[in-house]
Amino acid sequence: MNPQMDDTGQKIRVAVVGASGYTGMELLRLLINHPAVEITALTSESYADSPIEEVLPSLFGMLKLTCKKFDPREVAKHADVVFLAVPHKTAMAAAVELLPLGVKVIDLSADFRLRDPAVYRQWYGADHAAPELLKEAVYALPEFYRQQLTTARLAAAPGCYPTAVLLGLFPLLKREVVDPCSLVIDAISGASGAGRKLDLPLHFAELEGNVKAYKVACHRHMPEIEQELSRCIGRDVMVTFTPHLVGTVRGILATITATLVTSKDVKELRTLYQSWYQDEPFVRILPDGRFPETKQVRGSNFCDIGLAVDARTRRVIVVVAIDNLVKGASGQAIQAMNVMMGLDERTGLRLPPLFP
Amino acid sequence: MNPQMDDTGQKIRVAVVGASGYTGMELLRLLINHPAVEITALTSESYADSPIEEVLPSLFGMLKLTCKKFDPREVAKHADVVFLAVPHKTAMAAAVELLPLGVKVIDLSADFRLRDPAVYRQWYGADHAAPELLKEAVYALPEFYRQQLTTARLAAAPGCYPTAVLLGLFPLLKREVVDPCSLVIDAISGASGAGRKLDLPLHFAELEGNVKAYKVACHRHMPEIEQELSRCIGRDVMVTFTPHLVGTVRGILATITATLVTSKDVKELRTLYQSWYQDEPFVRILPDGRFPETKQVRGSNFCDIGLAVDARTRRVIVVVAIDNLVKGASGQAIQAMNVMMGLDERTGLRLPPLFP
Amino acid sequence: MNPQMDDTGQKIRVAVVGASGYTGMELLRLLINHPAVEITALTSESYADSPIEEVLPSLFGMLKLTCKKFDPREVAKHADVVFLAVPHKTAMAAAVELLPLGVKVIDLSADFRLRDPAVYRQWYGADHAAPELLKEAVYALPEFYRQQLTTARLAAAPGCYPTAVLLGLFPLLKREVVDPCSLVIDAISGASGAGRKLDLPLHFAELEGNVKAYKVACHRHMPEIEQELSRCIGRDVMVTFTPHLVGTVRGILATITATLVTSKDVKELRTLYQSWYQDEPFVRILPDGRFPETKQVRGSNFCDIGLAVDARTRRVIVVVAIDNLVKGASGQAIQAMNVMMGLDERTGLRLPPLFP
Amino acid sequence: MNPQMDDTGQKIRVAVVGASGYTGMELLRLLINHPAVEITALTSESYADSPIEEVLPSLFGMLKLTCKKFDPREVAKHADVVFLAVPHKTAMAAAVELLPLGVKVIDLSADFRLRDPAVYRQWYGADHAAPELLKEAVYALPEFYRQQLTTARLAAAPGCYPTAVLLGLFPLLKREVVDPCSLVIDAISGASGAGRKLDLPLHFAELEGNVKAYKVACHRHMPEIEQELSRCIGRDVMVTFTPHLVGTVRGILATITATLVTSKDVKELRTLYQSWYQDEPFVRILPDGRFPETKQVRGSNFCDIGLAVDARTRRVIVVVAIDNLVKGASGQAIQAMNVMMGLDERTGLRLPPLFP
Repeated sequence: MNPQMDDTGQKIRVAVVGASGYTGMELLRLLINHPAVEITALTSESYADSPIEEVLPSLFGMLKLTCKKFDPREVAKHADVVFLAVPHKTAMAAAVELLPLGVKVIDLSADFRLRDPAVYRQWYGADHAAPELLKEAVYALPEFYRQQLTTARLAAAPGCYPTAVLLGLFPLLKREVVDPCSLVIDAISGASGAGRKLDLPLHFAELEGNVKAYKVACHRHMPEIEQELSRCIGRDVMVTFTPHLVGTVRGILATITATLVTSKDVKELRTLYQSWYQDEPFVRILPDGRFPETKQVRGSNFCDIGLAVDARTRRVIVVVAIDNLVKGASGQAIQAMNVMMGLDERTGLRLPPLFP
Repeated sequence: MNPQMDDTGQKIRVAVVGASGYTGMELLRLLINHPAVEITALTSESYADSPIEEVLPSLFGMLKLTCKKFDPREVAKHADVVFLAVPHKTAMAAAVELLPLGVKVIDLSADFRLRDPAVYRQWYGADHAAPELLKEAVYALPEFYRQQLTTARLAAAPGCYPTAVLLGLFPLLKREVVDPCSLVIDAISGASGAGRKLDLPLHFAELEGNVKAYKVACHRHMPEIEQELSRCIGRDVMVTFTPHLVGTVRGILATITATLVTSKDVKELRTLYQSWYQDEPFVRILPDGRFPETKQVRGSNFCDIGLAVDARTRRVIVVVAIDNLVKGASGQAIQAMNVMMGLDERTGLRLPPLFP
Repeated sequence: MNPQMDDTGQKIRVAVVGASGYTGMELLRLLINHPAVEITALTSESYADSPIEEVLPSLFGMLKLTCKKFDPREVAKHADVVFLAVPHKTAMAAAVELLPLGVKVIDLSADFRLRDPAVYRQWYGADHAAPELLKEAVYALPEFYRQQLTTARLAAAPGCYPTAVLLGLFPLLKREVVDPCSLVIDAISGASGAGRKLDLPLHFAELEGNVKAYKVACHRHMPEIEQELSRCIGRDVMVTFTPHLVGTVRGILATITATLVTSKDVKELRTLYQSWYQDEPFVRILPDGRFPETKQVRGSNFCDIGLAVDARTRRVIVVVAIDNLVKGASGQAIQAMNVMMGLDERTGLRLPPLFP
Repeated sequence: MNPQMDDTGQKIRVAVVGASGYTGMELLRLLINHPAVEITALTSESYADSPIEEVLPSLFGMLKLTCKKFDPREVAKHADVVFLAVPHKTAMAAAVELLPLGVKVIDLSADFRLRDPAVYRQWYGADHAAPELLKEAVYALPEFYRQQLTTARLAAAPGCYPTAVLLGLFPLLKREVVDPCSLVIDAISGASGAGRKLDLPLHFAELEGNVKAYKVACHRHMPEIEQELSRCIGRDVMVTFTPHLVGTVRGILATITATLVTSKDVKELRTLYQSWYQDEPFVRILPDGRFPETKQVRGSNFCDIGLAVDARTRRVIVVVAIDNLVKGASGQAIQAMNVMMGLDERTGLRLPPLFP
């Protein structure tokens, strides 16, 4: 029942390093039906030598591969593109070994997102292993770095929060519609964003029915957001960023509040967004009176954006929803691969959301 | 972004009558990516004249059709196959009008599942509008009625509970391994099985975190299960069937307990199931020590089966999981359509489960 | 098993008008164990003449009263204090009839919260039925209007969002620590805040797993928040208020961002809050590094407050958690009753949260 | 705000050994408001020397005690009654040390439930450390061993599944209404029953929305159920027991199917149950057509029982709901303490369920 059998043509051979975590298994869910791709190698340190269908029972009968311990030569021999779905620090070490072997690398960790090694050290508590690669890595938000991705050898898939925030804010900042000093961002995430590593706050009985803020004004995605916003307008931007965790699995909802430089009504702003994103296959600007819901994008690569203006306080409120494991991680990584490999960017990603 | 554009070839034109309910929207989710199908018409009484992307925001940008009030001539003009995703009683009336117009009809309601009009009246409180069509209708469980489906004009997609129970029990009954008088079935369903109609027990604050039994020994799927089990072995079978509702959305888990006629160990039984279902693309017999979980099939057309034997009491326990909206409704209906239209049965249904 | 039997002494006789909604049933849950109270009368229009233990199966065997249709004379005959747990508009009509009969009235609806009848009309779409009572009504946030409550005849229990926001903001505004023009409030609520009335967005399968913003910058609690903040500092305050709904039942988490007038560190602010609330039995100022979680207050009358400062942007972030049905509604109403009746304010409300 | 201060009178001094797990914290939630008890000592190996309000933030401000490492002399010095809320094996070692020091011990683990040391070894994989105490220990289901509890020094609080099953089955077996060879039990539990220890199947993203069977026909509560049923009728009883885990936190629902020895209608059976349990404060026999729901007992010590008869198959279906942490653990342990200490059995346990 492997759909890849149906197709002829030369397939792109891909490997997934770290197949047993949530972004790894989400890559597999999406790649299994990607018509231009053949999954050729999987690695997992915790499940080395286990068939993937034992590791991920949802894939039982769908993929006949066995996880191996990571060996860069072995991986590079079987793959044209390697996805790194391993924790930060591990990822940069793997990239350093893989790139000279001629493969393209798409890293889903944080290791190649921050351009400044000092900032990396400050937020991730380690020296960067490959500062020279930092310069080369392309920040894999295709809506803004598509051109650079076409020739990239190393892509850094953005964090989930930054994806939602940047797609929500870029049009306003680029058009100088809002005061960049006024940005207040509250974002809500489900538990899958924290990964599969056991931790008491992620224990079912603790999190179910719970709503809380965490890492208030000190989350690692804050410098990533600020870096990209600053690049966007060419000067330093600082934001107040408060992430929240609720008892759901998938989805990020970001609510961004900003002060308008000059009065604008919501219709003008919607027109701006619609025109800005008119050719983007995965960004949906919602009509008047409708706001994004995480469940309306669940399992899909969509980023939904809704807009409101509080004329009294002259503030705009931008609400953005993505599935953190798809547009916020694995789907975006595949979208980047499509660009890097010259495919139609939508290939394998035309998935309607799973609702209800 | 309509994937149907990519393909040439003559497409099967399909209409969905009742597009705004859960089985209707699930048909759309699956059919949008079905390579041999073109969705040509949608009806909805509650949302007549609304674009489907307003009715179902998850499909925003994916399907450019407007819901109409049901008009059989209009539907038949645009479709080769019509799915009826409307409540019982409404469905049989629609089928009576549609069939003479030359379309094939696949009914997801209960209207053509019970062969005996008297049983229908007893359980659904109405005279059957087309008893002669009852004789013609094929019970659309492809694993057992595939042959009959190839020539069917009218197919009755099985209920969600019966799908799980029948796939779990047929091998045991056919092979006379268990006593047909000993069947005790407890099944657990999520809320989507109850549909989109508002009702206090389905109000979020009431159901969240709740576990309960309902319609104990008097659920409408009981006579459907008994009819098919009786046909299976050629004599009357009665079961004790207790459905349960829990605070989840998708999934049915059926736990079936039966007394073995002669001692058998679990290995023998697994071999029986594996051989029985060896050519079935959607039935997965789980290995030793593994039991089905609804989340391992969510969003997919799989039916997972696990087995245990309590040697002390000489009972077998069969555990079955399906997604009630896919293998228990819309996926199965499409599987039936594939058979009826001579397509590869798996077309459009090779979906990995959405986990986590 | 009625605990009220154990006690002698003269009990306060209380009636609950609207016993079958969520705030009504929560009043019963709390009042059943209130040692100074006897529940003497219940009304419900939808369940008139039904025993309450049929209407609310959780109370089966705990309360032997039958719901009646609302009759002001009948209610006043049996009660010293009447809680109104009915929708707005209905509540003000009931208050008008009840007060002249000599009972004290505690209204949980919005009818007596807004002081200006014009603002009421603007936000609730109706003329106020008793503008003169508006002047008399005391806003029943005991932490700020305790003195006025001791002599009140009519109390207006605050909305759930306003309770969280006002308790979180008053110390900062009163002490002029933040710029009142800088207030951005994002709040997250569970579904019980929307009541028991059926509605598609509250249908289980729609809301489960969902996160969304709603009534962005136009929620009815916004003018209530602004009214009280303005009274607090003696001049007009406007806020940007974005409420969110997530798939949980109980709990509100409010995240308030404000710009500091002069630099302050979090320790100074915590000292301010601790001293401000030092005698308050239900406000808990969390220690350094800890932030509120809705589940840590579930079922209790606590209001938990956590603080952070983003020194770079000179903003303070205040996070507040309450159980919307307790401190945000019924618990607060009972706290107000305790004050109005000269009881220890904590009576009947010493409930540890239900965790996990 | 410690309610124990309000009362004079001599209090029973209680210690909780293992205060940081779910049954330990639930004991604290209930004991804090128990009017005849003073909590005097807490132990926790993982959180030794931490104030309990840091360990359990929900109790912040409610209990001013610090957890210590377990030292039997220290505990016995401060307590009349000791609750053991630690894992099996640890519990029996503690009991052996505590009993000679003159305290009463109530063990919430499995260590003193099974009378036969050989059965203990078979199911718990260890030799029993105190087989002589096994003979002395009273199985603390007050509805059946009340008399024995009045003089007990050592009580073994029943498992959560056994509590539900035994309360549901005893009347039928005692009255010889059903065939003891026909018992099929399917039970559904929330995650809190599995405790606070981290484990991948209890990781939020894995369990949320999931429904599964586990330990089919081999759960450790099966021999406990069989032991007590066998004692009940004086001969060996074997059951088929299939536990299920669903994505909720609190609650057990047990569905028991049994064959009637002679035909009986549901009315006769309800009369039997009502008369059997007429003096029991915590067992509620639901009226005709109503079935238990876990949420209708959540947070309370109630055990709700509903009944149905399938006359066609001559089977009775008994449905039972409890909160596994209350009637299935900590509430039941306190109920036992009340009996052992000569208090009104209901003291401290008159808690209405938390609904919704």
